Amino acid sequence: MTGTTLDDYTDRYARRVRGMTASEIRALFAVASRPEVVSLAGGAPYIAALPLDAVGEMLGRLGAEHGTTTLQYGIGQGLPELRERICEVMALSGIDASCGASPEDVVVTVGGQQALDLVARLFLDPGDVVLAEGPTYVGALGVFQSAQAQVVHVPMDDEGLIPEALEAAVADCARAGRRVKFLYTIPTYQNPAGVTLSEERRERVLDICERAGLLVVEDDPYGQLGFESEAPRPLRARRRDGVFYLSTFSKTFAPGLRVGWILAPHAVRDKLVIASEAQILCPSGYAQAAVSAYLGTMPWREQLKVYREVYRERRDAMLTALADLMPVGTTWTRPAGGLFVWATLPEGLDSKAMMPRAIAARVAYVPGTGFYADGSGSGHMRLNFSFPAPERIREGVRRLAGVMEQDIAMRRVFGQVSQQGRRGQAGADAPGPDLA
Amino acid sequence: MTGTTLDDYTDRYARRVRGMTASEIRALFAVASRPEVVSLAGGAPYIAALPLDAVGEMLGRLGAEHGTTTLQYGIGQGLPELRERICEVMALSGIDASCGASPEDVVVTVGGQQALDLVARLFLDPGDVVLAEGPTYVGALGVFQSAQAQVVHVPMDDEGLIPEALEAAVADCARAGRRVKFLYTIPTYQNPAGVTLSEERRERVLDICERAGLLVVEDDPYGQLGFESEAPRPLRARRRDGVFYLSTFSKTFAPGLRVGWILAPHAVRDKLVIASEAQILCPSGYAQAAVSAYLGTMPWREQLKVYREVYRERRDAMLTALADLMPVGTTWTRPAGGLFVWATLPEGLDSKAMMPRAIAARVAYVPGTGFYADGSGSGHMRLNFSFPAPERIREGVRRLAGVMEQDIAMRRVFGQVSQQGRRGQAGADAPGPDLA
Repeated sequence: MTGTTLDDYTDRYARRVRGMTASEIRALFAVASRPEVVSLAGGAPYIAALPLDAVGEMLGRLGAEHGTTTLQYGIGQGLPELRERICEVMALSGIDASCGASPEDVVVTVGGQQALDLVARLFLDPGDVVLAEGPTYVGALGVFQSAQAQVVHVPMDDEGLIPEALEAAVADCARAGRRVKFLYTIPTYQNPAGVTLSEERRERVLDICERAGLLVVEDDPYGQLGFESEAPRPLRARRRDGVFYLSTFSKTFAPGLRVGWILAPHAVRDKLVIASEAQILCPSGYAQAAVSAYLGTMPWREQLKVYREVYRERRDAMLTALADLMPVGTTWTRPAGGLFVWATLPEGLDSKAMMPRAIAARVAYVPGTGFYADGSGSGHMRLNFSFPAPERIREGVRRLAGVMEQDIAMRRVFGQVSQQGRRGQAGADAPGPDLA
Repeated sequence: MTGTTLDDYTDRYARRVRGMTASEIRALFAVASRPEVVSLAGGAPYIAALPLDAVGEMLGRLGAEHGTTTLQYGIGQGLPELRERICEVMALSGIDASCGASPEDVVVTVGGQQALDLVARLFLDPGDVVLAEGPTYVGALGVFQSAQAQVVHVPMDDEGLIPEALEAAVADCARAGRRVKFLYTIPTYQNPAGVTLSEERRERVLDICERAGLLVVEDDPYGQLGFESEAPRPLRARRRDGVFYLSTFSKTFAPGLRVGWILAPHAVRDKLVIASEAQILCPSGYAQAAVSAYLGTMPWREQLKVYREVYRERRDAMLTALADLMPVGTTWTRPAGGLFVWATLPEGLDSKAMMPRAIAARVAYVPGTGFYADGSGSGHMRLNFSFPAPERIREGVRRLAGVMEQDIAMRRVFGQVSQQGRRGQAGADAPGPDLA
């Protein structure tokens, strides 16, 4: 059997193997991580803003003094102490006992990704429809694809998801006989769009879902990272039933620990625990103890303020650079929190086709196509401002603007430049080994 | 929508939610963890045997000095440095470059559980058959149930899986038109049976699977924990293709870090990475750095010897206690490694029905029924010897023998005691709140 190929495995065992394709974003990150490249492509928090000496000391103690418990197996639902602290964190944004939030209904997960995957595993059958903002989180698209579900995108504007468009999508699916299971939404400081669902629309979106009998999966990794006035209360703070609330410590503490959670409707909490046990047995006891100790013994509320200030300064640097440097016809969102700006290119530019030239000019971003299930979005790009320093952000935008100006000039000379024509000229349009 | 019940969710969204039942073993562990109970129920390594001060110091440094990378996002496949060290670990048991093992084909996972779940996710469709030893790892049954696959058990004897029985199972499935995807096997120091597939049978099992076109999923968490002569080489050391090799640092270092791996056939490695990214985005960079530093800077080979010596002493304590104290008619396996003894009760005793009386007598074990997909196995129990100290093991076996003697005496007086009759008399047979 030496030399078995993928086709052998595919033909003999599972079509599913063929259905999955390598993530463009993963390939992109490999290139973007080179030091000479200004990466606006990531989604990483600025870990250097943490008090690493104190964190290290805390981590060391958890091993030396509490190793016989922290390094041992734990329970599937997660440490009770951590689940209590998670409730304190949620209470900051209004999800508290008054709306039925309880440590009993928290399930600790391997980051927000596993939280989402567990909900999908419990509720999605092949062919089911998930409604999601367009654009939406690329990792969510991976989950839904893996569950063999279909994503129907609902458009946003500056106030987030458009309720009328949501109603129309629900009606379209009903007419077509498609079974919609839930709305997946990132209402606050959305990834990648950077917009926030307005106060008034939150109630309308919930009403529409309730009338249609749809679950709501609310993903809220960024809600604590607002730069301006307070964000509207999460959807879960408004409805006790039918809303799964997902969040993570990846943006507010440290993604390397992989600790997230679901606040689940009480009736299905046990099922989520069983599904998680089948997947990972239990989340890391050590990582949970670390987050619990961080929340219990370190000034995490002050650290949130530090992150907010760092990110606000970087967002401002990005907005200023975009205004100063971007070609006419480019537009972008003005996020009140979170990590990302969503830019819309001048008519005719293609962010995916432009990528190799951007890398050659030592700047990286994520093409808009990564955030749509159908590969649309080539007229957009996601720009991250949380990780690079302000001066690097400006330099990155400058390089990017240069690439765009070049593309615009080419278009003026040659008219509509086809993929074919462009490839002939630049010789670099097809993803090379670096992007494969 | 206040007060939505599980039935509401089930009826409206997914039958799958109803199909899952609470794990008996999870419930059992909650009871067994009380200090007055001697628990022979667990599967935990004896973490106190680790040099916890040195481990703590190492963990602290990883945060304080390397936090900007260890606490940050990583890549889906896992740290290259750790994957190289994993290859060094596998080389100890004969899986090395000569049989095509390479860091390129290692995928780091959240313990052995995620490794198994990923393989299942890639290859199992609802209704597919998995062949597995009977009894087999309870967590594997959870994975296969979650994938809506059927398990067909293949019996073992003291030399492990019986090749003739495997052939018969393959033929039966073929005749019945059932699609078998793979053999799931724990060939070395099997959980729960404690037996090891003999040298000669390894080749025969591989041949049978190859002829039948079956993948082999080899789960090897215990292979490094042998007490006597060396274990036969793993299946993966004998075949390069068609074998997925799964292992974990949960038994040889620390389960609380949740670091395991798959050595995958090259052709499907990328698909496993994509499936893992959809599930957890990436494994914990911090936990991976910890395992990597443990393997790179600490005397892990010597620590393996420490574990082996501790466990051999405890196994001996258990075998001696069983021989001294068990009622006539009880038999048990004599494991040459690993963590478990599998005991077969005298005719007519029921390990599941006996459990509440055992807990009342302050001893816990796992009833054999947990290790069969069809709930058979009530004439057996799994006894763990890795965690309790030798004198506790003897005391636990003494308590257990007392409960069994009582049951035997009852049978002599009342003849075959039915579940119903027993419940009437003892008033404790139905799982009470402690076991629910």
